[in-house]
Amino acid sequence: MSLLAFDLGGTKLATAVFNEDGKILFREITPLEKRKGAEVGELISNKIVSSINSSDKKIHSIGISVPGIYHAKKGTVWAPNIPGWDDYPLLEEIKKVAANIPVKIDSDRACYILGEAWKGSAQQCKDAIFLAVGTGIGAGILVDGNVLRGAHDIAGAIGWLALSPPFKDEYIECGCFEHYCSGEGIAKVAQKFLGEKNNYSGELKNKPVEEITCHDVFHAYRNHDEIANEVINICIQFWGMATANLVSLFNPEKIIFGGGVFGPAIPLIAKIKEEATKWAQPISIKQVSFEASGLGSDAGVFGAGFLALNNLS
Amino acid sequence: MSLLAFDLGGTKLATAVFNEDGKILFREITPLEKRKGAEVGELISNKIVSSINSSDKKIHSIGISVPGIYHAKKGTVWAPNIPGWDDYPLLEEIKKVAANIPVKIDSDRACYILGEAWKGSAQQCKDAIFLAVGTGIGAGILVDGNVLRGAHDIAGAIGWLALSPPFKDEYIECGCFEHYCSGEGIAKVAQKFLGEKNNYSGELKNKPVEEITCHDVFHAYRNHDEIANEVINICIQFWGMATANLVSLFNPEKIIFGGGVFGPAIPLIAKIKEEATKWAQPISIKQVSFEASGLGSDAGVFGAGFLALNNLS
Repeated sequence: MSLLAFDLGGTKLATAVFNEDGKILFREITPLEKRKGAEVGELISNKIVSSINSSDKKIHSIGISVPGIYHAKKGTVWAPNIPGWDDYPLLEEIKKVAANIPVKIDSDRACYILGEAWKGSAQQCKDAIFLAVGTGIGAGILVDGNVLRGAHDIAGAIGWLALSPPFKDEYIECGCFEHYCSGEGIAKVAQKFLGEKNNYSGELKNKPVEEITCHDVFHAYRNHDEIANEVINICIQFWGMATANLVSLFNPEKIIFGGGVFGPAIPLIAKIKEEATKWAQPISIKQVSFEASGLGSDAGVFGAGFLALNNLS
Repeated sequence: MSLLAFDLGGTKLATAVFNEDGKILFREITPLEKRKGAEVGELISNKIVSSINSSDKKIHSIGISVPGIYHAKKGTVWAPNIPGWDDYPLLEEIKKVAANIPVKIDSDRACYILGEAWKGSAQQCKDAIFLAVGTGIGAGILVDGNVLRGAHDIAGAIGWLALSPPFKDEYIECGCFEHYCSGEGIAKVAQKFLGEKNNYSGELKNKPVEEITCHDVFHAYRNHDEIANEVINICIQFWGMATANLVSLFNPEKIIFGGGVFGPAIPLIAKIKEEATKWAQPISIKQVSFEASGLGSDAGVFGAGFLALNNLS
């Protein structure tokens, strides 16, 4: 059996063909370049048509991971980083070319935890959470084996967690947790501290302040830089509080850390668990394991493969 | 059809018989007095036997709401406010007398939201949350029509929410949110403020400080008392942040406020929503309604009635 899986991001489309055991038979990365709106839908449609027409593998099912929000009832996508995808009718467009092959779509955060449950760090788990920390922050939440969707498909918007009163205007754009702890947040907090500390002379001075990235901050942190240390310690505290809140509310078996920031933040997972242990329900925190993603940047495409497989059974 | 429902609390047992439409045919409150351990189980067993033997109504199903944690796989209860119920085999004890009538048990917080979904403020909802604020704080969470249990039956331990860094030793016993915002927390925070303010001469001075209750604080708040105002404003902030976090994570249709504190805090729900609106995912907060419990102190016994009904279908 062959499963055709797509992981659509803001800048590229990952395509893979899996067999039913999760073995990758084919894979490809296609940059989106300047595509927008319907052109992005057409890119996926064209990949499907060429996969169906290629003689070597019969495609039995199709799964697609999309950024932003997938409205399951309508089959439409809201994706702020793809211009024109305010309510894009992806399912309808795909069905036009799918030749009656079953198609299943879900949000990237849903796919991350499904991918990990299928072939990554959450295998055999029915209650597990993927904390995706990249440019933004989202959570894919598995409850008794099913993805938590909420009433209108936007559950898991964990970047908006309220973790430190009082409310500040800085949180309006993206939420309190994301403001401090996303890749973009880490860079911005470091830039702010650099503007405030006149007597600082560490490695973050080697670049114009507005060009400082999250990766620069982690590099400096590993070299015991004073500002980087301050920024990352704030993150450890909030990552600990946020995961403590997930533990107290969901009583999960595992919390999986992934996205571009975990990555360089993987060595901090033990410290995050230590912080979370202070705050969380004390029995529940003993029942949970904190782990790095087993699939890394492939979590989305594995999740899409699982969508395709699960849609057949 | 008759459904026999029990709501066990720390000090009393509520018994009710419902028909399948949720109409109460009979009800009774029995104080636990000094009963402990197996005596509490026997009290329920005796009520079941006498209900079965009474000639007027045939009992078709039994539901029981218990405080603390119900371990569904083992059928045992951990209830810190019932001496000797560390891992009490309630299901086994009840089955001895139930004469093959189906029995279903669940935690009080699960029953609160099931009761509200059956006959209270959450009717027709598949995604709704009951925030129970009494001596402690817990949450009954309905996800796509099912109660969220977690991997080991202790999901919904919302009293442990981390809402304000850094961690303080005061949070060790009961969690950060509960420390400030439970009935007991409100009384203790007021007592602490009374000890700190030497020039205060308001109505909370009319009692020895250690006797101040949550209800005294609400009485003083309604009279614009300075200390009560400070204590309740802290609560509004944290209730707002905690419900914002529920909204961002679960994207529910409704959040229902109940327990002894809501009660006197019902007039504050609009202010709590206002605070939550600052913090929560901005689309999700527009999709949720904040409401007072429709069943008040009967939420648990209605939930037990629903357990009994649902166990037949």
